[in-house]
Amino acid sequence: MEELKARIIKEGKVIGSNVLKVDHFLNHQIDPHLMQEIGKTFAKAFKKKGITKIVTVESSGIAPAVMTGLFLNVPVIFARKKRSLTLSRGGLETEIYSYTKREKIHVFLADGMLKRDDRVLVIDDFLANGEAALGLTRLIEQAGAQLSGIGIVIEKSFQEGRKKLEALGCPIFSLARIASLQNGKVSFLEDVQKQTQINL
Amino acid sequence: MEELKARIIKEGKVIGSNVLKVDHFLNHQIDPHLMQEIGKTFAKAFKKKGITKIVTVESSGIAPAVMTGLFLNVPVIFARKKRSLTLSRGGLETEIYSYTKREKIHVFLADGMLKRDDRVLVIDDFLANGEAALGLTRLIEQAGAQLSGIGIVIEKSFQEGRKKLEALGCPIFSLARIASLQNGKVSFLEDVQKQTQINL
Repeated sequence: MEELKARIIKEGKVIGSNVLKVDHFLNHQIDPHLMQEIGKTFAKAFKKKGITKIVTVESSGIAPAVMTGLFLNVPVIFARKKRSLTLSRGGLETEIYSYTKREKIHVFLADGMLKRDDRVLVIDDFLANGEAALGLTRLIEQAGAQLSGIGIVIEKSFQEGRKKLEALGCPIFSLARIASLQNGKVSFLEDVQKQTQINL
Repeated sequence: MEELKARIIKEGKVIGSNVLKVDHFLNHQIDPHLMQEIGKTFAKAFKKKGITKIVTVESSGIAPAVMTGLFLNVPVIFARKKRSLTLSRGGLETEIYSYTKREKIHVFLADGMLKRDDRVLVIDDFLANGEAALGLTRLIEQAGAQLSGIGIVIEKSFQEGRKKLEALGCPIFSLARIASLQNGKVSFLEDVQKQTQINL
């Protein structure tokens, strides 16, 4: 998605060789118009998959997921990282390990949110090691629903997540695929591939 | 907002005499079309206030805030309840006391997100004792920006929040005002007021 890639180049900040900070349009401040375009793009990509529900995890996944739900005309569920007053017990639960934060968290989904005949699209803001997205797919599996697609806003293609998700056998669509963050510079996978073709 | 009130009556669950659970369209599962209508309604209410930024707090405030930002054509910032990897130090910080959870939490806003000339609309999903909304107004004050309005999706008018926010002297607009949750039944303030007028 060219508009997203342009925003990453313009406003993203590279920290070390692994972290891309996009706090100005996705992870802290949100650009609603960009989210709308992201929602349209995901909806177009998955429109033939018969999606009935979208699942994401709080908090940065919510904005792109809600916009996608708007265009696919389906409800959005956000898994919670903490039990709330109204989800004090029961429900589905799984453990997610965060490599960046070096901690385990638990994510929760209330009973009955997903039905056995639901066809579920997972949406998340970042794909790095894939632990968050894999955790969501486990919740979908626990509910007996069908995983029908995974949509990622920004994929760090130099990390392991993509490979792990591909093993699930469902369509994966990432709006921006980052090949490298070396030397403080963002290189996109498609551009690297084009470059390689030119050099062949 | 009649559509919202109808959904509260149809899908809300009253727990005790204080808690309204709306996990099917706002707090866990989100109805994107309802959020769009909520965004339109807030945008219409605050369109003459010269709003330049919206501030909410993760997670349930994000969906209504992003839709409002879309129609007001302004960015949305969500305050974080936890420091993230990319907000590890600095920034603005305030303490919020949650009466329902009986705990203090800290909320964070990165430096530079709000400017001194920003006119800020606060959006939140619930107004009960007002602590969350007041915390957001303190962050806006710390940034030197101007609080120009507060939009609340569901107000529990029988609790103290509304009165505390009115003391700030800015316009407050709640889409559904609940007069009581007594005996497991939702009574809206406008309906109670109409009823009183009829009985006069």
